[in-house]
Amino acid sequence: MAEALKLAEQGRTTTTPNPNVGCVIVKDDQLIGAGYHQRAGGPHAEVHALLQAGSAATGATAYVTLEPCSHQGKTPPCADALIAAGVARVVCALVDPNPQVAGKGLAALRAAGIATEHGVLASAAEQLNLGFLKRMRTGRPRVIVKLAASLDGATAMASGESQWITGPEARADVQRWRAQSCAILTGVDTVLADDPALTVRLPDCSRQPLRLVLDSHGRIPLDAQLLRMPGTTLVLHGEHLAAERVAALQQAGYRPVGLPLVDNRIDLNALLDWAGHEQLNQLWVEAGATLAGALIGSGNTDEVMLYQAPLFLGAQTRPMLANQWHSLADGVRFSVLDRRMIGQDVRMRLRPIHD
Amino acid sequence: MAEALKLAEQGRTTTTPNPNVGCVIVKDDQLIGAGYHQRAGGPHAEVHALLQAGSAATGATAYVTLEPCSHQGKTPPCADALIAAGVARVVCALVDPNPQVAGKGLAALRAAGIATEHGVLASAAEQLNLGFLKRMRTGRPRVIVKLAASLDGATAMASGESQWITGPEARADVQRWRAQSCAILTGVDTVLADDPALTVRLPDCSRQPLRLVLDSHGRIPLDAQLLRMPGTTLVLHGEHLAAERVAALQQAGYRPVGLPLVDNRIDLNALLDWAGHEQLNQLWVEAGATLAGALIGSGNTDEVMLYQAPLFLGAQTRPMLANQWHSLADGVRFSVLDRRMIGQDVRMRLRPIHD
Repeated sequence: MAEALKLAEQGRTTTTPNPNVGCVIVKDDQLIGAGYHQRAGGPHAEVHALLQAGSAATGATAYVTLEPCSHQGKTPPCADALIAAGVARVVCALVDPNPQVAGKGLAALRAAGIATEHGVLASAAEQLNLGFLKRMRTGRPRVIVKLAASLDGATAMASGESQWITGPEARADVQRWRAQSCAILTGVDTVLADDPALTVRLPDCSRQPLRLVLDSHGRIPLDAQLLRMPGTTLVLHGEHLAAERVAALQQAGYRPVGLPLVDNRIDLNALLDWAGHEQLNQLWVEAGATLAGALIGSGNTDEVMLYQAPLFLGAQTRPMLANQWHSLADGVRFSVLDRRMIGQDVRMRLRPIHD
Repeated sequence: MAEALKLAEQGRTTTTPNPNVGCVIVKDDQLIGAGYHQRAGGPHAEVHALLQAGSAATGATAYVTLEPCSHQGKTPPCADALIAAGVARVVCALVDPNPQVAGKGLAALRAAGIATEHGVLASAAEQLNLGFLKRMRTGRPRVIVKLAASLDGATAMASGESQWITGPEARADVQRWRAQSCAILTGVDTVLADDPALTVRLPDCSRQPLRLVLDSHGRIPLDAQLLRMPGTTLVLHGEHLAAERVAALQQAGYRPVGLPLVDNRIDLNALLDWAGHEQLNQLWVEAGATLAGALIGSGNTDEVMLYQAPLFLGAQTRPMLANQWHSLADGVRFSVLDRRMIGQDVRMRLRPIHD
């Protein structure tokens, strides 16, 4: 199973909206087939592994990181393929929470006389597909808010100067997280201030995540750098936006999407429902203090990825979050999932604790 | 030597202004004597160990964490005691940078025909006596600035509410650092705002560090809690302060000390020279954003002990440092010496990098 998980990981930047799945087929203590899901629409892990095993699969054991599918999607059901190949036993890490599967894959195998087990290395398999699993369970994507600041909490000097607070290793780490996400979310104020590219610039990158710009009033420039980058940029604007402006956004090259407003801002709940509906498993948020603070303060954040540069910048600086909390009890508390050095910087993975 | 270092550590809260020193005496692979320096004025480590070894010390090897002293201080020179005991060999970790010793101890031993070595586990021995060694080398104490803040750099809400940002384990850790320091330094504004005790409240505490309050204009209340605490509180005021006020401070129970002002504040260089002259090895600073910022910004800090509570407190908060820097290049950069969890909080030991 550990081998299957390692294989699954190879699809981390490409399988969206599908999960990462790996499969190995073992007979008489010999590995006779191995595969992983590479991209949506392409063959599932089991199919790759069965193909490699060929007729030797008869009587073998298949280890799969996620329950084999039982439904006809873009490809035929893997449960049927395993039955047809004559495997004797299927061991999987996780039952697929996808309502179209949800135990039906294992049931189909058992009905065909195949022994099944599940739960093997389940938590490692869960870690590999946090976004997919959250979307299947809740209909919304996993939201990771990235923040980069000094140790005294400054994201920029009062003047706006912020390049670069963190070092090149931290910025490369951000690239890897972007690549593993389905979409990158930012706010229009960040586009206006920094004109960012928000692309993945990794040598082996074959997919650009969607870029989502939260822009209630359609203020995004029609010549932003985003438009010259490979990949698609969606402008999420208020439903009220004038048809001419929507048309102009479209003509400039954006994909405009109207969403309801609350208090003159895009309704974050509507945003996340929409993103789930669009099959986005993981949103990677690189935004300013207002949007990051709104997502964190509203309880709509699964994880904060905090890069801390080992420096102090003093009192003439910009804060990490714009939230106007008045007492300690209003703040958001986290459990520290992981801490490590990334170059000269410290990276903390934080999970909000909701009482 | 590892054993001697362990012994030396037992004196960490009590030997000030002397260094922590441990000594073991070994003969025929048997430990025949062991001791450590317990308090200034009391016997040195070597004397304890020789006493235990008795006549067996003849021909033995003594392992000492610091070069044996060669001068008559409050107690006679240890080099003479080792010679009189007839040891054959003395191995020490560090040469004592104290100008009264500085190699003379080893020279005296060699002149008496004793074999000597030094440099064994030197860096561990250095760590044990960072304050003493700095004072011997520079005439000034080691300065550690303690800061406690949220992950977004808030030390308190705008209202002043700050109890408690960090957890009980972090506060207990602070107690241990206070106990190992010669003096605790704070500013009068902290006394006015919080009326702190600044005492060591540990069960095995036999010594209260001096408490130093930086108070240029003698504004400290004459009924502050500090006066009711065991130990001594010094008020470091400007030399200009009216004699009546100085007398009132003294009568209230403070020990007033006049220091020169620069820009209407106590001159930090004069402060540190004075502290070195007072034989303070280590200053532990628990102060507000102004004094902490001044010490860090002026390059007068050896280490920052940062306790980060895993929470975000937003934009209506007080900053860690009051420094009005304008560009990233003005900030202070650190190397991270050590990171660990202390209860729910993260503690970082940071050393400023001075270009």
